Amino acid sequence: MKAPFVALLTDFGHADPFVGVMKGVILSRCPWARVIDLCHGVAPQDVRAAAFQLRCSVPYFHDGTLFVCVVDPGVGSKRPILWARGERHSFLAPDNGLLSWVGPLREVRRVEDSALFLKPVSRTFHGRDVFAPVAGALAAGADPARLGPRAKPEVRWSWPEPKRAGKGWRGKVVAVDGFGNAVTNLRPEHLKGRLSAWAAGRRFPLRSCYADAPDGAPLAVLGSAGLIELSLGKGNLFGSLRVLVGDTIHVR
Amino acid sequence: MKAPFVALLTDFGHADPFVGVMKGVILSRCPWARVIDLCHGVAPQDVRAAAFQLRCSVPYFHDGTLFVCVVDPGVGSKRPILWARGERHSFLAPDNGLLSWVGPLREVRRVEDSALFLKPVSRTFHGRDVFAPVAGALAAGADPARLGPRAKPEVRWSWPEPKRAGKGWRGKVVAVDGFGNAVTNLRPEHLKGRLSAWAAGRRFPLRSCYADAPDGAPLAVLGSAGLIELSLGKGNLFGSLRVLVGDTIHVR
Amino acid sequence: MKAPFVALLTDFGHADPFVGVMKGVILSRCPWARVIDLCHGVAPQDVRAAAFQLRCSVPYFHDGTLFVCVVDPGVGSKRPILWARGERHSFLAPDNGLLSWVGPLREVRRVEDSALFLKPVSRTFHGRDVFAPVAGALAAGADPARLGPRAKPEVRWSWPEPKRAGKGWRGKVVAVDGFGNAVTNLRPEHLKGRLSAWAAGRRFPLRSCYADAPDGAPLAVLGSAGLIELSLGKGNLFGSLRVLVGDTIHVR
Repeated sequence: MKAPFVALLTDFGHADPFVGVMKGVILSRCPWARVIDLCHGVAPQDVRAAAFQLRCSVPYFHDGTLFVCVVDPGVGSKRPILWARGERHSFLAPDNGLLSWVGPLREVRRVEDSALFLKPVSRTFHGRDVFAPVAGALAAGADPARLGPRAKPEVRWSWPEPKRAGKGWRGKVVAVDGFGNAVTNLRPEHLKGRLSAWAAGRRFPLRSCYADAPDGAPLAVLGSAGLIELSLGKGNLFGSLRVLVGDTIHVR
Repeated sequence: MKAPFVALLTDFGHADPFVGVMKGVILSRCPWARVIDLCHGVAPQDVRAAAFQLRCSVPYFHDGTLFVCVVDPGVGSKRPILWARGERHSFLAPDNGLLSWVGPLREVRRVEDSALFLKPVSRTFHGRDVFAPVAGALAAGADPARLGPRAKPEVRWSWPEPKRAGKGWRGKVVAVDGFGNAVTNLRPEHLKGRLSAWAAGRRFPLRSCYADAPDGAPLAVLGSAGLIELSLGKGNLFGSLRVLVGDTIHVR
Repeated sequence: MKAPFVALLTDFGHADPFVGVMKGVILSRCPWARVIDLCHGVAPQDVRAAAFQLRCSVPYFHDGTLFVCVVDPGVGSKRPILWARGERHSFLAPDNGLLSWVGPLREVRRVEDSALFLKPVSRTFHGRDVFAPVAGALAAGADPARLGPRAKPEVRWSWPEPKRAGKGWRGKVVAVDGFGNAVTNLRPEHLKGRLSAWAAGRRFPLRSCYADAPDGAPLAVLGSAGLIELSLGKGNLFGSLRVLVGDTIHVR
């Protein structure tokens, strides 16, 4: 029996047993599943941050991995829950934009077959009562067609592209990681022939790696998401200069 | 060979390799065990918080799962370590109240067979030297009867029931989760025909889910533990109003 | 097919999907590997702390476990990456001192066979692009000889031994754990016939376990690493007295 992979992405943090309980439910339904923690440190209810993490992570997972994504400020309300199949992976997520940037979705369904849910379904923890048992059932071989009718995501965000600004570009910070680095929406092509990004009144010269900048000096670098990142040599940019998601970056 | 499930609950946090080392020991003794992190974010030495987490989590795990619970301010002292078998699961825990609320225990033994322990047994890390190797041995099929003599838990707390107060009830906060929500000891029956809970001088009207309250407004909701929770619409109640474990809740 | 064990030690923290993505890559290359989190809470770029964690953890893992260690301030620069085989385990780590205290290394090679790496190799996330795919290949049975030529670690620290000081010893704090306990480089032999350690102007009398000291009182205890630890009875020494790595301890 081949072990199906189930990857979990939540904003549940690590103070509570919420993630552990989800695993208990998944493994009760499919004891041979392999459950992988993608991340549980998404800022509470920050759906965009989760969508960005998913964009950066999905391609690195085994074909067929099911991503169970629970960043869900609308839990218990009427917002739909979606199952979706992409090119190599599939997903369970609330219909709140979380799947905006995972690439083309080949098939999307509403998750409505309550025969698969735990009983009773709480109004505050669908991760345990809906997402986990459905994930376990799918991992154990349930046909996705039984989950519910075909649907389109109601919420889907376009990727924020940099804009022309004079002879340069105006981009923005799309994420700040745990080291304090600011990931921007700028790609290498936006820096072609230009030497620096500017943010928070500082110049961030382009370097080839973190270690190429003097300690404490601002730098820009091509980051692991294929996007330009701003950083401080052996420092924490967020801690020092408070660069925030949404801040404007100029390239000129 | 069926993979036995071992779930870990500790206050070890994530800054140190303590949990990882326990897994190393368990898997050295039973390489085919499936080890699941229930939670390692229990506040240091907060045995009651761990007991409450266990109460909320155990029912969701596979039959036969062994819960290894190490929140143990008495480590290295003469406090006994217990193995216990409940209705569907079994447990290893210090005899300090941790197993108070997991339901009826069918069989309880003191863990005394030092042939199973690592040598030497440190005085500060029984998670590694006692709990993990015993868990590994049990997972690998050791007979619990060899662990030690039958015993009764020396410490067992009764569940704190709400008390009558006039025409209403007086309850209390039994846990605060990582989102800042305050879990109370009140069940839906205590709110029957009543509209609100009161705490910290504020009224918490009963809502059917978090999203039903305006942003920042207090609400009470039936939480996932089957208990009434106090919360703030898209906010952090603990952060805003400092509602603490043990605080009194009035329902009237 | 026996499941190979791969243990991960990083400073990636839990806010980002970096560790999850590494697991995705390892399991893409070797779906039957068993991946264990040793620790991801090493302070950012604190190679010495990681080296100490490794020293305390490795002996407790199954023979043949591969430790993948990514605390790597030089990521993207020319610093080599090493594969090493010790007496019972093997390792992947940057050549920055991380493997200083894991015991004798029987064979060391530079990791240079880029055919095993992800393409393109980013300059900021070798955990994903180099360490993980190489670990997956090794777990799946690749011959370490193909990784690259034999080498010696360029950076290897000696263990800081306590020094004679009058009739006693002068040691130092080598680590502070998440409970605030200060682990020193003193072994039991250094305290023989002596009763106390001194640090931060306080006396830490030797006790046999944490619970033997009154609440809030300083104590020294033989810790789980075989080293003398300083602690406060039911308290947090680091939080209270700011004892830091490198601080001097006197025994007399």
